[in-house]
This record gives sequence, C-alpha cells and structure tokens, in this order.
Amino acid sequence: MAMVTLLTDFGLRDHYVGAMKGVIARISPQAQVVDITHEVEPFSIAQGGYLLSQAWCWFPERTVHVAVVDPGVGGSRRAIVAEAQGHRFVLPDNGLLSLAGVETPVVREISNEALTLHPVSRTFHGRDIFAPVAAHLAAGLAFEHVGPLVDDWVRFPLSGHQVLHIDRFGNVITSLRTAAALEICGERIDLYASNYSSAPSGRLFLITGSGGYIEISKREASAAARLGCRVGDAITVDGRS
Amino acid sequence: MAMVTLLTDFGLRDHYVGAMKGVIARISPQAQVVDITHEVEPFSIAQGGYLLSQAWCWFPERTVHVAVVDPGVGGSRRAIVAEAQGHRFVLPDNGLLSLAGVETPVVREISNEALTLHPVSRTFHGRDIFAPVAAHLAAGLAFEHVGPLVDDWVRFPLSGHQVLHIDRFGNVITSLRTAAALEICGERIDLYASNYSSAPSGRLFLITGSGGYIEISKREASAAARLGCRVGDAITVDGRS
Amino acid sequence: MAMVTLLTDFGLRDHYVGAMKGVIARISPQAQVVDITHEVEPFSIAQGGYLLSQAWCWFPERTVHVAVVDPGVGGSRRAIVAEAQGHRFVLPDNGLLSLAGVETPVVREISNEALTLHPVSRTFHGRDIFAPVAAHLAAGLAFEHVGPLVDDWVRFPLSGHQVLHIDRFGNVITSLRTAAALEICGERIDLYASNYSSAPSGRLFLITGSGGYIEISKREASAAARLGCRVGDAITVDGRS
Repeated sequence: MAMVTLLTDFGLRDHYVGAMKGVIARISPQAQVVDITHEVEPFSIAQGGYLLSQAWCWFPERTVHVAVVDPGVGGSRRAIVAEAQGHRFVLPDNGLLSLAGVETPVVREISNEALTLHPVSRTFHGRDIFAPVAAHLAAGLAFEHVGPLVDDWVRFPLSGHQVLHIDRFGNVITSLRTAAALEICGERIDLYASNYSSAPSGRLFLITGSGGYIEISKREASAAARLGCRVGDAITVDGRS
Repeated sequence: MAMVTLLTDFGLRDHYVGAMKGVIARISPQAQVVDITHEVEPFSIAQGGYLLSQAWCWFPERTVHVAVVDPGVGGSRRAIVAEAQGHRFVLPDNGLLSLAGVETPVVREISNEALTLHPVSRTFHGRDIFAPVAAHLAAGLAFEHVGPLVDDWVRFPLSGHQVLHIDRFGNVITSLRTAAALEICGERIDLYASNYSSAPSGRLFLITGSGGYIEISKREASAAARLGCRVGDAITVDGRS
Repeated sequence: MAMVTLLTDFGLRDHYVGAMKGVIARISPQAQVVDITHEVEPFSIAQGGYLLSQAWCWFPERTVHVAVVDPGVGGSRRAIVAEAQGHRFVLPDNGLLSLAGVETPVVREISNEALTLHPVSRTFHGRDIFAPVAAHLAAGLAFEHVGPLVDDWVRFPLSGHQVLHIDRFGNVITSLRTAAALEICGERIDLYASNYSSAPSGRLFLITGSGGYIEISKREASAAARLGCRVGDAITVDGRS
C-alpha cells in the first residue's frame, strides 16, 4: 500500500484538507496520508513547486504526491498524473510539475471519469479529482489506466532569479544554486557563511540551505523582515538577473 | 478498526491536540486519526458546526467524529455521542450536532465513567472525555454502552441568515442555499457566476460553493477583506433576514 | 511497531516537517507519526520543553518523541537519545530534555553514523539526524546501539518563575505549581477560581490548568492581551521570584 502526500494552498482553517482525506480513506482505507504543507500562498505556483521539490524525494518510492495550487480551477486546464524517478504526482497542468524538480517525467491526462467523484464540482477539484485519483493509484491502479499520454504539459521556467520562498525563520530562499554575492531590494550581500553558528551576529549573510539553494539569513533574526522582501522579488548577480 | 476525525477550536500552537492523539493511541493503537481542522474561532459553535457539516460525510461509514468547541467546559452541559447515517459523533451537547447537518441522529449521554480518563479535569474534556470515548468506539465499543438515550439534546437553529465562515481565500460562506441577490454590510450583491473562471475580475459575485451554500467571492482576491465582514454578520435577501 | 511524535519550532509553512516524515517513512514504513506541535516560538527551548512535558506522558509506552528546537544546529552541541518512564526521546542536548519533565533519564549520545543520513547537512539535523534515529528506534533498534552513555547532559533549570507559554485562548501558563496570588507585568492577581464556568466575567483570575501549572485566565477573553505579557516574562509571589 503506497503512501499519499498532500501539498496545497488550502490552509488549515477550512475543511478542505479534511474532506480530501475523507475521500482518500473511502477509496483506499489503508493508505497513510502525510501533509507536506497547506500554507502555500494562495495561487503561488512557483512557491508550491519549490516546496514540493524540497520534500518529495525524501519519501519512499511509489509514494503518490498530490499537489493542488490551482488558480485555473473550473476552467480548461488539464488534470494530469506523472511518473518519474519511481514516484507519482497528481496535479493540475499549470507548471507545478516542472517546478517540482522531477526529471524526465512520463505524463498522462486524467481522463478516466470512473476514477473521479461524481458530480465533479467546479470549485474543488482537490476533493473531486486529485484526491480520488491519488487514492486509486495508492491502492494499486496501473498508471496507464488514468488516461492518454501527453507531451505538451506546461513547462514553467522562472523568468530570472527570484525569491522562491520565505521560511518560518525569515530565511529568504532564492532560485540560485551558487553565489558569492547578490543584490536584492537595493542591497548587496557579499558575506558567505558555511554554517549558522559560524556566521556573525547582526549581519545578513548567504548560506547554502539544506535543499541546495542559496538562502539569505541573519542569526536568530528574520532576514526577510530586515530586507522587507517578498516571494517573487527579483535577484541580480553582478547586475544581471 | 474505525477511523477517528478531530475538529476543535484548540489551534495547533498548543499541546492540546497532541495530548488527545496520545490518549487515543493508548486506548486504540490501530486507529487512524485525521484532523479536519483545529482553527475554529475560539467558542464559535456555529462555525464549528458548519465546518463539520462540510467534512464528515466524505469519510467512510463507521468513522467516529470528535468535535470540541466548548465554551461551557467545566459547567453542567452534557457530553453526548450520536449515531446517524452510519457515522458516529462525540461532542458536547451545545448545538454542534444540530449544525453539523446530520439527519435524525440517535443520541446518548456519556455516563459510563469507565470510558473516561480519571481524574477528569475541569478544563480539558477533549483529552479526558471526548478522546477516550471516541477511541473506545473506534476499537469496537457498542454504542449502547456509552450511556442512556436522550431526546432533549440541544437544537441550535440559526436566528436569521448570517456569515457562517470565511475561508482562507477570503470567500464568505453564507447560510443561504440559493440566492440571486443579497445584502450584507450595507452592500447589495446581485451578480451570480457559475464558476470562478467565468466571473469578471474586480467585482464581488455570488457562487454556489462545493458544499452547497451560497458564497460571496472575488476573483483572486479576498471578498471578506473587501466587505470588511466577519463570521456571524447578518445577511438579508430583499430586506428580510 | 512504536509510534513517533514530533515537536519542533519549524512551523507548517515550510517543507521541513514533511521531509522529516518522508525520512521516517523510508526507514520505518509502518510507524505512525503524530504531530504534537510545530509552532514553538523559534529557538524557545523553555516553551518547547513545556509543551513536550504536557504531551508525551499521554502516549503509549515505547513511543519515540522527537523534539527539535535547536539554536545551536551546525555547532558543537551533542545529539542525544534518552530513555525514561518507558518512553524514548530524540533531541539536541540543549536543555529540552530537562524541561520536558522526565524523571531519571538514561542518556546516550548519537554517535552511530550508520543511523543518520549521509551527508548530514549543517542546517537541518531534524531531517538528517533526529528523524532517522527515531525511525530506527521505532523499527526496533536497541537503545544501546545509538552510542555511549553520557552523564553530563544539559540541565536547564529556570532562573526564577516566568511565563512558560501563552495558549491559543490567551491563557498565560506560568511555571508555578501552586499560588493564591502573584505579580506579573506590574499587576497583582489574587482571585483563584476552581473552574472556568465559576469564574467572574471581566476579571483576571488564577486557575490550575490541566497540566498542573497555575494559569492566568479571563473568561472568554485573552488574559495575555489584557496583561500585555509574553513568553519568558518574570513572575513574582510576595515580591520574590
């Protein structure tokens, strides 16, 4: 029995995540369901993809990862399932998959209506499409029964380096993999520290985070509050984005 | 082995939910426990009942739903268990059950002290009464062993239409099932959209939400912030509440 | 198969908790993982210890409790495992264990590198050390295979009475076990109530909370907002701390 992970921008104040878990339990009572996060900023596909990219690879092979950040719900975007590196992904076709850092996925459109809840609402595909398809996959459904292969799924390359995420501690996660110096919000940061405890107090510094991205940090303080920066802000290196 | 869901106004900052899960695990180690939400506004029975009404029906039959929004803890209100439509509910007798949308429940008072933790604190019945009773039910306890039948459990009809809930996206969930127009906070809203993607940008509109209630929405923006409304605010249709 | 609990200051916005759960699932797929809280204030060891002290004892014996509030990550503090009262604890050696209220623990340093993820990052020992060691313990690893015994683990006695925690309802949890009166933030509080529903409206009062500590409360209102107090603020009784 495979595990199911959930990542959404639904938050935890509402019943949305609970309803998805109920649907999964009905279809696949033995499946373990694990939350990655539900606090993606509403409609932020880039942040959702980043957070998924940092989490999915730590789970066992065969895990089914459901990701729902879906500004186009009720419109014409496709619902897809992907298989890559031994994992499965169930999500809207809006760039999330591309940002999640999976390599050479095989992608199928969800077209088998027997796998979804009927009626499918216009507003809550997390409950009506993504959760039930994930539950069926966790219970053993073969990938090819989901629907036909698609080649033209949405790639979503970032336009220039930017702030991908700001974590609870105020660390600013950038889209850079290496940097000795960078500019953000009108400031230049050119101090690199190899770990938090060796960094000086009171100054912003760069550090390679646990996911391999360059982060901007400040010891026991919020770098994001100090800079006044937000998710999506532009970053330049030597004046180039 | 039945599943147990939890809905409370305890939040996630404290140890309260963790302690309830520990108690359930001691009594019924195999029971799967699923959170619906713990972010009900403190003491808001109406909101708690609404959120429960939107979630419980998606779970498998025999699920035990624990709901604790309990301004009267330590006082004389009863603790009850209900059985309806194949599900079980464990909660204080303060109107939550009535608002949860269950039909023709059979209700018993929790009077079997062998099912609760001793000593029962005056402040934390979630841990000391509701969690252990739910765990015993999940583990196979027969409903009739909980205590005697009660007929006069608390009905809690809403007095006039109102805002039941405001979700993470700022959608305003009303207690109306149908409406082409309504008034709230001194404004009239008379635009109805059949789905989010067909609604115009920049205007408030009405939409039927995934739970069947009329919601007030604004595309990719917070309708609640635009209106300045809160849970409990009155709603009128053609000048009548 | 033992249960694993998690308590951290990581919050739920990030992928950190999800990554820890993935690592646990890889090593010990059958282990149930339960969140106590992830909303400890960043780097607040005293609050983390208090919350752990209120939750761990409700879980079944043999449960493995992971606690990560770790301002010294990447530096030289030890990672330890403790065994006490039938439970196991996996955490940094920075005082958390002492504050968690365990009695006469046997403590071992985590020195068996085969139990950790390689490479161990400098910033995320929750994922790379604490989660995998906990998963191995849950799966049956013998305590003595973790590493050598240590006697000089960090005790962290509180210096004077203080605010340990402020809960969701604004109740102010103090480090006092008994008190008929106390002073905090320049105010004296000398009304004791035996339960919430018997307390008068509109006044601050003292009550013994479900965990045995004296709490400062106000009926259906936030005592913390009324006092303007914060975690760590000093409390005196008859002028003495």
